[in-house]
Amino acid sequence: MTPPDQDTPDRPPAPIISRLLGDPRVAQARLGRRIGRLPYFTKVESATGPITRMEGREILNFGSNNYLGLANDARVISAAQEAAARWGAGVTGSRLLNGNLALHEELEEALRRFYGRTGALVFSTGYGANLGLMSVLLGRHDRAWVDEEMHASVLDGVALARANMKRFGHNDPEDLLAQAAEDTHPGICVVEGVYSMRGDRAPLRRFLEVCRASRLALIVDEAHGLGTVGTRGLGTVEDEGVVQDADFITITFSKSLGSCGGAIIGDAEQIEALRFLTRPFLFTAANTPASVAAALAALRILQAEPGLVRELKERVRSLREALHARGLRPIPSDGPIVSVEVGADFDTLQAWRLLWNRGIYANPVVSPAAPAGKGLLRLSVMRTHEEQMVRTVADACADVFSDLQLSHEGRGKVAS
Amino acid sequence: MTPPDQDTPDRPPAPIISRLLGDPRVAQARLGRRIGRLPYFTKVESATGPITRMEGREILNFGSNNYLGLANDARVISAAQEAAARWGAGVTGSRLLNGNLALHEELEEALRRFYGRTGALVFSTGYGANLGLMSVLLGRHDRAWVDEEMHASVLDGVALARANMKRFGHNDPEDLLAQAAEDTHPGICVVEGVYSMRGDRAPLRRFLEVCRASRLALIVDEAHGLGTVGTRGLGTVEDEGVVQDADFITITFSKSLGSCGGAIIGDAEQIEALRFLTRPFLFTAANTPASVAAALAALRILQAEPGLVRELKERVRSLREALHARGLRPIPSDGPIVSVEVGADFDTLQAWRLLWNRGIYANPVVSPAAPAGKGLLRLSVMRTHEEQMVRTVADACADVFSDLQLSHEGRGKVAS
Repeated sequence: MTPPDQDTPDRPPAPIISRLLGDPRVAQARLGRRIGRLPYFTKVESATGPITRMEGREILNFGSNNYLGLANDARVISAAQEAAARWGAGVTGSRLLNGNLALHEELEEALRRFYGRTGALVFSTGYGANLGLMSVLLGRHDRAWVDEEMHASVLDGVALARANMKRFGHNDPEDLLAQAAEDTHPGICVVEGVYSMRGDRAPLRRFLEVCRASRLALIVDEAHGLGTVGTRGLGTVEDEGVVQDADFITITFSKSLGSCGGAIIGDAEQIEALRFLTRPFLFTAANTPASVAAALAALRILQAEPGLVRELKERVRSLREALHARGLRPIPSDGPIVSVEVGADFDTLQAWRLLWNRGIYANPVVSPAAPAGKGLLRLSVMRTHEEQMVRTVADACADVFSDLQLSHEGRGKVAS
Repeated sequence: MTPPDQDTPDRPPAPIISRLLGDPRVAQARLGRRIGRLPYFTKVESATGPITRMEGREILNFGSNNYLGLANDARVISAAQEAAARWGAGVTGSRLLNGNLALHEELEEALRRFYGRTGALVFSTGYGANLGLMSVLLGRHDRAWVDEEMHASVLDGVALARANMKRFGHNDPEDLLAQAAEDTHPGICVVEGVYSMRGDRAPLRRFLEVCRASRLALIVDEAHGLGTVGTRGLGTVEDEGVVQDADFITITFSKSLGSCGGAIIGDAEQIEALRFLTRPFLFTAANTPASVAAALAALRILQAEPGLVRELKERVRSLREALHARGLRPIPSDGPIVSVEVGADFDTLQAWRLLWNRGIYANPVVSPAAPAGKGLLRLSVMRTHEEQMVRTVADACADVFSDLQLSHEGRGKVAS
């Protein structure tokens, strides 16, 4: 054993460490923990189903991305188990060197066929797929046009490239057009098929026109659209008829596909270039056989049974109708995320807590994830939710809004 | 199905896409593929053992990071399988929100205890752990001092923070001291316990002194040291007696632990701050139950059976002795990576190919991963290699050096 360092208590930490410990956000989190349950890092004690054991209780779970229920599907779990037996628990190397299993290539082939494109590249995380794509495409003098509600993985990729980022209004292709018209830099435009916080969909057909007029490459993140939108579950790209037109589509395996990992889908030649150039791809260990096989099994189930997507959509429609019937006005969409505006951050956290006290888990969205004063209560639907559960959560939301004297139309506190 | 876009063939791609396709590195890779086998993206067709099926042949594998053989250990595989059955194939959410399994916390607890520290934070990839740590610690006006042989994940983290990076000479704490003396910025120093390419170890005790004198936080990446160096397998931090002193130790699960993922280990208070602030942690789906359980099982085996580390070290010693007996001079170290300098990139790739033709897989290290003219043949030892295999690879290396008229002492081509 290493002897403890005797003089540690007397030495002040390096300035970088002192600053880390003094970060006001950390103090805030510490305070939050002291005064009661924070809505974060809830300890999950069972598999993620409609009923999930959390912090010692059986909770009605409306806060998971297991949209199709495939994370717990017996066939998906078997595929993961068999892959571990056949290929080992890990591959202990990058795809570039010793970690390029035939299994990884099989998943890439299945993904590109699913989207009817000619290339796909598999990453060990969805974050890595976005980080990698932005950082490999962009140089310092390029422009990244991103929707103002864009996911952190895209923003971090743009930062890693040290490129110049400009935001356009949420779901506003005309704002992009106006801004890009005055810009001569080579650029990309990144949008999400279904936005993770508000749950609404991007008008992709119009974004495609604007990108073509402005000579921007169009990238669509279908993290939340895969398995949930479109007849076959390709995402908003399918409903809007731009599957073939987007320069790249990025996805994750950690939502509808019930695993972990991500991919970039596009044309073979571009994907082949990415395969040799993308640092977060080249310098990450390849995903485990179990994770890859689970994603592949889930994808095959989705392809064979498009009825799963339909069932999910029916459940989403039920929840929306139930909320409307109780006077609540969720943000319009037909995706699996049903968000209701609450208002102030404090009220949003209160609403979260009242739901939690009633045995319901949802996600509160407060600043900086939502603009100040526009906090959201975010419900995520699973295909495996039962109708009774949908009614229970709708009742609870209506009660909570009344208890907190919140406007059901999402205009914050009702004047008393 | 989306109808194919009729006018695609006539429209030139966006400038960003044209530039991607025109990247000279892509053309080079394409050429490499045309003229014969590239040493990259070799298709692996079995589990990664001493003998691994690759590209249709049974290959003697000296190019894997499965140092302790635990990726194929029956107990590790069972743990992965049982976790998939109990917890599902994936957790479909970030640790922050719905993906914080008791299992993740159990692995964090086991890791911090293994290192005798008070905190640990688990990531879905090792790349993410380094990317996250550097990007959360550093601000734009800070200095990151990194060894000139540093892994890409650290460099990308510094870039993501947009901090100012300075390199010091490889394994040269005096160079760091001289440079840092003239610098007043808050800063960090990042070194690797065992370097991934040359396989040599960092003089950590001296680096610690220099960091204290210069008020730099010291970060040690033990990706290749965990399970391979130190009596208990903690890494070079153990042998050098700095386990308690390093501000942070980062590790990966994708080498000795036979899974995928990574972690940061340090003091509880600092780790708790990272838990709330680190973007690549907050915005990545939590690692799958199978991957987490496999890493945990492997860690427990390593703790219970330190003899595994000893066995690996004996195998490493055998290979070094066998190479020396044949006149070759590997870069001195006692870690699991045994690298021999070849010289020019062309000769290095040739040496790789000749080994491959004899049924041996190793890793060629050419520029930019090695300085031009200092290409390496890199052999990675597994505990599960047999003595006969060690002799076979040593014989083959000696033959290849002779065939290519290379200096056995790593001084390139012998004048003919």
